[in-house]
Amino acid sequence: MSETSTRLSGQVRVVGAGLLGASIGLGLKSQGLDVILADISPANLSLAIDYGAGRAARADDEPAIVVVCVPPDLIPSVVRAELDAYPRAIVTDVASVKGLPLEELRSNGAELSRYVGSHPLAGRERGGAISARADLFIGRPWVICPRPGLARAEISAVEAMILDLGATPVEMETSAHDAAVALVSHTPQIVSSLMAKRLVSSSDSALGITGQGLRDVTRIAASQPELWVQILGANATAVVEILRAYRSDLDRVIETLTDPSAPGARRALAEELAEGNAGVSRLPGKHGQDRRYSRLVVMVDDKPGQLGRLFGELGEIGVNIEDFRMEHSPEAQFGLAEILVLPEAEQRAIEDLTERGWRLAG
Amino acid sequence: MSETSTRLSGQVRVVGAGLLGASIGLGLKSQGLDVILADISPANLSLAIDYGAGRAARADDEPAIVVVCVPPDLIPSVVRAELDAYPRAIVTDVASVKGLPLEELRSNGAELSRYVGSHPLAGRERGGAISARADLFIGRPWVICPRPGLARAEISAVEAMILDLGATPVEMETSAHDAAVALVSHTPQIVSSLMAKRLVSSSDSALGITGQGLRDVTRIAASQPELWVQILGANATAVVEILRAYRSDLDRVIETLTDPSAPGARRALAEELAEGNAGVSRLPGKHGQDRRYSRLVVMVDDKPGQLGRLFGELGEIGVNIEDFRMEHSPEAQFGLAEILVLPEAEQRAIEDLTERGWRLAG
Repeated sequence: MSETSTRLSGQVRVVGAGLLGASIGLGLKSQGLDVILADISPANLSLAIDYGAGRAARADDEPAIVVVCVPPDLIPSVVRAELDAYPRAIVTDVASVKGLPLEELRSNGAELSRYVGSHPLAGRERGGAISARADLFIGRPWVICPRPGLARAEISAVEAMILDLGATPVEMETSAHDAAVALVSHTPQIVSSLMAKRLVSSSDSALGITGQGLRDVTRIAASQPELWVQILGANATAVVEILRAYRSDLDRVIETLTDPSAPGARRALAEELAEGNAGVSRLPGKHGQDRRYSRLVVMVDDKPGQLGRLFGELGEIGVNIEDFRMEHSPEAQFGLAEILVLPEAEQRAIEDLTERGWRLAG
Repeated sequence: MSETSTRLSGQVRVVGAGLLGASIGLGLKSQGLDVILADISPANLSLAIDYGAGRAARADDEPAIVVVCVPPDLIPSVVRAELDAYPRAIVTDVASVKGLPLEELRSNGAELSRYVGSHPLAGRERGGAISARADLFIGRPWVICPRPGLARAEISAVEAMILDLGATPVEMETSAHDAAVALVSHTPQIVSSLMAKRLVSSSDSALGITGQGLRDVTRIAASQPELWVQILGANATAVVEILRAYRSDLDRVIETLTDPSAPGARRALAEELAEGNAGVSRLPGKHGQDRRYSRLVVMVDDKPGQLGRLFGELGEIGVNIEDFRMEHSPEAQFGLAEILVLPEAEQRAIEDLTERGWRLAG
């Protein structure tokens, strides 16, 4: 894309050349913008520049916007320093918690009329410039937190950058944002990590009968502890509130299971599980709740080429695939490919795939 | 397949024509075996027979094996009745908890030399004969619980049926089985349901920034409460033991987050998260931990035909796809297709897909 198509104009300075910073650099550079990179570590900085995420700073830089992508604990001091160093720049940051850094900025006397807090809902399990990608933010929500007194022009500049990166700007009050991420991101991280911790001392034979359910529940338990300690610490109040409610429910379940034949115990347990049904049904997304699609399950031998052959033949058959998920069984020689198709295409897909020798389960 | 290829011979009687019973019927009938179906509900029975899962019982039936597939609470009485009704048959059941039913069978004086408890690790989110499928058990572990005094011939008969259904027999002591499913199935169900319950009163805007993590953690929260109340009640002791340990960890996390700047708080929190890393790394499976594959991320417009076109072109390019996962972003017009390929195929896949106009993120 040529430079004329970007909403943003002028130089962009990115401070912190890790996964998010380097990805922002790659994304904006691919749009033709002049990206300046800075990092406290010369090695990190060189690496990100080598990856094409931006150039080194020069004395005469005049960034229109500064994006602070340092670890959560450093956000207030670095934002403050950037506001001071570039008195005409708008400064934003990408920290996943917005309230505490803002409080600290206020208490350290920063001139905040040019500061706009923001948070891209994007990431990867692996960090560093080495994992960065220009398209990391495409299609992801990116929250901007407006506040009383913050001018629309400042917000619009950050919004322009978000749109240039292909993300979707979403405005939320600071406290609403922190409560939202406590619920949809921070609490699930703890719930998942603590479940995964139970597997540390498990027998191999128990792990051998693991199904997809446990695998799904514990997937995000692979996240980096160092980063999450900072995130959770910065949003502790909102997270604790949810964890206390979660613990009350857990206590209730433990109580019902301590004496499952006590009067009312089964009903209480059923209510907890039914509330779980109600909660998960509120999540947007195709899988699970969505009944608009028919589901096919195809057995795929667990050897090279089989999944590719299935995709190739599905393409030849001309059936539109609305969604796809693969399930692996640890003890099996193959996986189960779950495919969602439009109901009117189901019968033909079954017939054509069966004719081509695929084993369908469903 | 012709009848001569089955390991099992003789009639198979299946009691309880729900998802599991009807699937067993379909699977064994497809192997040419004579399957007798029984269900306390005439409507359920007719439905399962209509679906081809077996035939109605006759007075002169002499089943070699009886498979009891009734709800957990009914297992002891139905197993007992079947042992009495068919004095030459081996009787097994498919309940997901094995200890309590065995105790109840012992205390009701059943002659247990012909009873073999078993448990297929298979299921679907939806129940009933209407969801049954002949291939439900293929590639899944199916636990058999041997006990002192139980003859090898009885175990072998159940094993033959399991192999005929395409499942993988796994022997585990009764108590080891119940402890294993408490860990890998029952506790994750509770952890997931209670997390999902927190979403009931959430704002729509919070749900709008939900990512894949929460979706994964809460997927199994869509399971049937009625069934799970029985399962959890029957395995209460083993589940409570794990839930108490989980709660101790949760208390520790709540304590660290109640005063995150207290000495030792961050370290304690980091340790909990690091233990989660250690636990999840023990799970078998391709995704996440497995570094044998390279990962491509392709942007797919969220409209009919796009995913199909991608699969078709991947087939044309001839790249072997080792695994596949789709991520949807609620605010976006498209999804991100994550594809695992062999490292040596990565570069060519990137080039060919890019040349064909796909946007790759990676």
